[in-house]
Amino acid sequence: MDFSQSAKAQELSARLDRFMCEEVEPVEANWHRALAEADNPWVVLPEVHALKQKARKAHLWNLFLPDETLGQGLSNLDYAPMAERMGRSLIAPELFNCNAPDTGNMEVLYHYGSEEQKAQWLAPLLAGEIRSAFCMTEPDVASSDATNMEATACLDGDEIVLNGRKWWSTGVGHPDCRVLIFMGLSDPEADRHRRHSMVLVPMDTPGVKVERMLKTMGQFDAPYGHGEVSFTDVRLPTSAVIAGVGRGFEIAQGRLGPGRIHHCMRLIGLAERALSLALARATSRQAFGRRLADLGGNQERLADARIAIEQARLLVLKAAWSLDHRGVKASMSEIAQIKVAVPNMALSVIDMAMQLHGGAGLSDDFPLSMAWTAARALRLADGPDEVHRQLIAKLEIKHHLADQ
Amino acid sequence: MDFSQSAKAQELSARLDRFMCEEVEPVEANWHRALAEADNPWVVLPEVHALKQKARKAHLWNLFLPDETLGQGLSNLDYAPMAERMGRSLIAPELFNCNAPDTGNMEVLYHYGSEEQKAQWLAPLLAGEIRSAFCMTEPDVASSDATNMEATACLDGDEIVLNGRKWWSTGVGHPDCRVLIFMGLSDPEADRHRRHSMVLVPMDTPGVKVERMLKTMGQFDAPYGHGEVSFTDVRLPTSAVIAGVGRGFEIAQGRLGPGRIHHCMRLIGLAERALSLALARATSRQAFGRRLADLGGNQERLADARIAIEQARLLVLKAAWSLDHRGVKASMSEIAQIKVAVPNMALSVIDMAMQLHGGAGLSDDFPLSMAWTAARALRLADGPDEVHRQLIAKLEIKHHLADQ
Amino acid sequence: MDFSQSAKAQELSARLDRFMCEEVEPVEANWHRALAEADNPWVVLPEVHALKQKARKAHLWNLFLPDETLGQGLSNLDYAPMAERMGRSLIAPELFNCNAPDTGNMEVLYHYGSEEQKAQWLAPLLAGEIRSAFCMTEPDVASSDATNMEATACLDGDEIVLNGRKWWSTGVGHPDCRVLIFMGLSDPEADRHRRHSMVLVPMDTPGVKVERMLKTMGQFDAPYGHGEVSFTDVRLPTSAVIAGVGRGFEIAQGRLGPGRIHHCMRLIGLAERALSLALARATSRQAFGRRLADLGGNQERLADARIAIEQARLLVLKAAWSLDHRGVKASMSEIAQIKVAVPNMALSVIDMAMQLHGGAGLSDDFPLSMAWTAARALRLADGPDEVHRQLIAKLEIKHHLADQ
Amino acid sequence: MDFSQSAKAQELSARLDRFMCEEVEPVEANWHRALAEADNPWVVLPEVHALKQKARKAHLWNLFLPDETLGQGLSNLDYAPMAERMGRSLIAPELFNCNAPDTGNMEVLYHYGSEEQKAQWLAPLLAGEIRSAFCMTEPDVASSDATNMEATACLDGDEIVLNGRKWWSTGVGHPDCRVLIFMGLSDPEADRHRRHSMVLVPMDTPGVKVERMLKTMGQFDAPYGHGEVSFTDVRLPTSAVIAGVGRGFEIAQGRLGPGRIHHCMRLIGLAERALSLALARATSRQAFGRRLADLGGNQERLADARIAIEQARLLVLKAAWSLDHRGVKASMSEIAQIKVAVPNMALSVIDMAMQLHGGAGLSDDFPLSMAWTAARALRLADGPDEVHRQLIAKLEIKHHLADQ
Repeated sequence: MDFSQSAKAQELSARLDRFMCEEVEPVEANWHRALAEADNPWVVLPEVHALKQKARKAHLWNLFLPDETLGQGLSNLDYAPMAERMGRSLIAPELFNCNAPDTGNMEVLYHYGSEEQKAQWLAPLLAGEIRSAFCMTEPDVASSDATNMEATACLDGDEIVLNGRKWWSTGVGHPDCRVLIFMGLSDPEADRHRRHSMVLVPMDTPGVKVERMLKTMGQFDAPYGHGEVSFTDVRLPTSAVIAGVGRGFEIAQGRLGPGRIHHCMRLIGLAERALSLALARATSRQAFGRRLADLGGNQERLADARIAIEQARLLVLKAAWSLDHRGVKASMSEIAQIKVAVPNMALSVIDMAMQLHGGAGLSDDFPLSMAWTAARALRLADGPDEVHRQLIAKLEIKHHLADQ
Repeated sequence: MDFSQSAKAQELSARLDRFMCEEVEPVEANWHRALAEADNPWVVLPEVHALKQKARKAHLWNLFLPDETLGQGLSNLDYAPMAERMGRSLIAPELFNCNAPDTGNMEVLYHYGSEEQKAQWLAPLLAGEIRSAFCMTEPDVASSDATNMEATACLDGDEIVLNGRKWWSTGVGHPDCRVLIFMGLSDPEADRHRRHSMVLVPMDTPGVKVERMLKTMGQFDAPYGHGEVSFTDVRLPTSAVIAGVGRGFEIAQGRLGPGRIHHCMRLIGLAERALSLALARATSRQAFGRRLADLGGNQERLADARIAIEQARLLVLKAAWSLDHRGVKASMSEIAQIKVAVPNMALSVIDMAMQLHGGAGLSDDFPLSMAWTAARALRLADGPDEVHRQLIAKLEIKHHLADQ
Repeated sequence: MDFSQSAKAQELSARLDRFMCEEVEPVEANWHRALAEADNPWVVLPEVHALKQKARKAHLWNLFLPDETLGQGLSNLDYAPMAERMGRSLIAPELFNCNAPDTGNMEVLYHYGSEEQKAQWLAPLLAGEIRSAFCMTEPDVASSDATNMEATACLDGDEIVLNGRKWWSTGVGHPDCRVLIFMGLSDPEADRHRRHSMVLVPMDTPGVKVERMLKTMGQFDAPYGHGEVSFTDVRLPTSAVIAGVGRGFEIAQGRLGPGRIHHCMRLIGLAERALSLALARATSRQAFGRRLADLGGNQERLADARIAIEQARLLVLKAAWSLDHRGVKASMSEIAQIKVAVPNMALSVIDMAMQLHGGAGLSDDFPLSMAWTAARALRLADGPDEVHRQLIAKLEIKHHLADQ
Repeated sequence: MDFSQSAKAQELSARLDRFMCEEVEPVEANWHRALAEADNPWVVLPEVHALKQKARKAHLWNLFLPDETLGQGLSNLDYAPMAERMGRSLIAPELFNCNAPDTGNMEVLYHYGSEEQKAQWLAPLLAGEIRSAFCMTEPDVASSDATNMEATACLDGDEIVLNGRKWWSTGVGHPDCRVLIFMGLSDPEADRHRRHSMVLVPMDTPGVKVERMLKTMGQFDAPYGHGEVSFTDVRLPTSAVIAGVGRGFEIAQGRLGPGRIHHCMRLIGLAERALSLALARATSRQAFGRRLADLGGNQERLADARIAIEQARLLVLKAAWSLDHRGVKASMSEIAQIKVAVPNMALSVIDMAMQLHGGAGLSDDFPLSMAWTAARALRLADGPDEVHRQLIAKLEIKHHLADQ
């Protein structure tokens, strides 16, 4: 189990690091401030646009995509430290065209899209010209159980007709969002894993309506945002179906492996950022005549944060390695493990950092409250902890019984 | 140790419960929505105004104040279940003129104010006509150590001159906020507990400036809000000083005992609310063919929540009983204990409820995210957990050594 | 909810405290040492015998029994602080004839025994002349589910015939153990709660065999001990059945309420003892130039222990109050709550104390390792945590649904 | 960072695994039983002796020692999975001459011993003919702070004179224990890290007395055991000093790196064993009509155990890799991290397994209680968690400040 990056990946990582230090970190706080103070935060800041161009020119672009031509030909293991590096900032991933849910959507199109679909949607997504959303979760049912899904995608002659209501459709608030990937039930009588379809839906299709933007822990997360979207008799040609009717579940499974690793890797970066802020505060503030670092259990908590981050990072690297060498199916336990371990680890590190900052830690003066919210959401997004734990246990039990 | 309420308190509690059920709970969600959608949320909704009148007429008013005439003559133990009942809602306490920081400020004026101060400020506060804020914490120092305080309140002839910067001044955003209680350093050479003064500052005094409103975990908490306030050569007659120069520390100590109990009691109510929402969700949603309540560890978590709430409530009742029977000074450990135990308990119960709700739990569709933020802030407000733990330990050690 | 003790109970508590301070605590460590070094530790030390006589003469005897004549007429609430006081020592309860499982067995006989059974067994038990054991748990099935029970108690004419294997029969190793209460299946066809019977079995009945004594975490817990006992065609007259065939389950339920409260109260005492030892160590040892109490997070841990003990004690008092005022059936959640909360609290406090003691904390030089083992066993004895949590949750859900 | 084993190590690992499966695991429970029932458990069972010979012939011997000739030339990373494999059993390490404290002592002699010392002590230790102990910790002071050490090793002409009292001298009860390594203060005036000396002390030297054997959580851990040893005017030629007077601290530091990794790796194995037992129990027992595995939160706990073990193993591998590639000094944080993380992880996994086993889990019928005790001791042995956390934090702070 070799966790080393390829030489190419090391070189890209070094350049990414420089880019982050020189271009992103000095201006990042300003962006947050600008958005917070904007009358309309659902915009792309001009600086963001400029930096995207710069990153693209520097080939720090589509790093997530394993393809040699369209991406940089990196493995998951190669990419992991870069995702971590970007993840130290909440705004950076977009600069490198590496942000969710577009990465997952691009992978879906890359692996399953028709030539026509690729030309129409994958190309502008890879170019960072448009953005996309993914419409899977529904407000009225427990979506952790996919068989609960109520939205429909029904064939009607050479059209597919969509109905239903989705929410937590991330990115739907972005001014450049042009296309949604919708998942719905096509045939309730089919085999359990052949019932659903995925359909590409241009945002301006009649019957598509963003009902509202949802707050997460009080935050809109603009300019990306999470929307509730209704679909009422939305009609599209069957050429909008990805890979054919009934393949939705299969595509969803494939989509989630790398997606979860990216999420987790970014959270490692966020946790490192929080620890770094905690160290800065602990060594610069005084109370009762001593540095905060020298009071009570603060050092023990800093140590626990270091231990927790190290363990989580290694587990993510192992999952990435497994995905690269053994494929998604053989890595299901590993992926579920990081999906449980990493957000919980990040929450505890970030919470510790917030506490060390006092009231400031909860305010917008530091990125900690936003980081906490991002990590908290990931205990639910892509499935709640509990569902992943069940999967891990089922696989443990299966292997145990097989070993006997 | 008798935790029973007096007959009068039981009767008031029953009426309060009815008022909450009939008047508050049916409309509460609408208020939150109205404020969330308002262009300017820094307003008093007309419905709130009307309900305040109704509560006042029903003598469900100033329940927190032990005075027989100005309040209802209730002990802390009597009042505790009422504070819990109000605390199930984030908006209710104001309806009964029982919300922080006004309650603490009224107590300060009640115990330490001059007749003139009482006439000018206490009377309209008790009438619910104006609101107030408390300016203690400072942005540039670790305020958990009071000796760090940098703001000054200096005598200059028959005037007192205030300078400095405060933040987390709760309530300062409210349109009816008319007066601040400011704490500053008057004499750095005096005995450690005689250095500070508290001063009543009308909001419109020249030199007082609300620099900005602060978000807590992304929320402004309008129409109350938490402000950063600068004081630049603010000049007031010495009659604005409460109880005389140098008594600030003493007043602050007295203020915090009941205040912390009220906070904690309200949090018990909030935790009960969260558990109740969790039970509703767990018994009404299905996944994998079963109620959520019947999946995995959900029942164990519901049980742990019940155990945690019961223990915390009893600890708060004990602290209230101790405050009533033994006074603030002899109850310092008890008060510190609840200040540590209750917010952490509430956070864990609320977080469990959020998780059971899936994405909805983080949204504004349920009061859980707001409740979490309120509880999180109370791990810092009135002193961080860590400082309270130190106090508890110091008292344990002191008693242990005395027993030997 | 009044947690005050009656005047009589206060007076008894004061005398008990004195007895513990003067008679027990000075010699207790010697007893442990004597037993540890004995070739045969399954003996009653002469000093123990003498102190029992002394306690009995002082009327510090059978304090657990509510009966005015046979016991001291104390309520559960009255008795709770005394059980706590005794619980600070692992050896004290027997001195006052207040140790498990004899207390539970005496209560069974008191409430359900025939006059003949009382004369034969209750009288010498109350006199502290003999000891008893309770045979319920079985090695081959998950005994947390009573319906799993495989041992049988079958009527055969005017005899009852016992067969099966029991373990964790506490007290069976004691040289004075003369009688067992055996629970077995009499009629698998009967109503779910009418299937089992309880039978009084003299130790020397043919067919009764102590197969072995079991270690708990490496300790035999001599001279009490926990045995594995086989019953092979053990024949007894039906007069040995308690309260009639088929009433075993009912008796077991009634037995467990007070029994669990006693266990929990004693554990509170044990946790207080551990905290007291921790404070002694923390204030007397030095490392890195400071008292242990002043290093790292030690004070925070001492504070957390205080908070945890206070909460647990109050919860036990509430359960005792509920049992006194509302009966066992209405107190089932409360009893389950303490059964979960208290052993876990005690374990965490004791573990903290062990850690503060370094290697000594794990050794026999301090009673901490024994205390830990006692507390650990109580996460399983009388039902594992998990089963109690399920019960609490079921009652919460029931009440929630009833409230709607 | 490549965690792969060398080809040679893989081959040895496979053979070790076979040896464990075929020779050790079938008989292991019998050994424990034989020792538990022995009048004198301080013996080497003949079967153990025979298996040691067999292991030695199979070159599964001294695997821990990096030397190509004396050991097998394995790196720490190579050896880690073998230590884990041995660690699944509490008795196995000795069979391969890989048990503490002999491994550490052999490393000390290998790196620092004179030719004479090597001939006299290292040779028979490597041959498994004798055993040794390490005398560092003292009963009267907090030994986590090495400067507290009170025992002395004073030069007197060409002799060194030892005085003092040590405890937790592991292995001193073994019948083959022939030599102790004693650490004492030689020159209190010397530079802080040059004050102590290490001395080789034959067990039969006049003045050496094993005062008593210590129990750990009630267990003697025979036939190894932990002793309290007094040294009274023990006189030895200066040739008994290792590497010269004043080098004790330096040697101790070097000794601890690999030692801690071995301990941690064995604990990973023990935790895996516990999880495996938990899975067996959860899938074979029924309660309430379902497998234990299908009740309440049991699957979630099994999943958490898997996650925790994986993370801990990866962290140990990283520490081993760091030790191999960067040396002890540069790996101090990594070694401290595993020393904190692994025993705590193991305790939580083993405790979960005990709970799933019911009473049996605490008994000697399963190796869980012994495993728990072994893991608990390792939160203190080689320094308590708290001291390691301080070190980690200090290094974090140092690096943080250096980065600015």
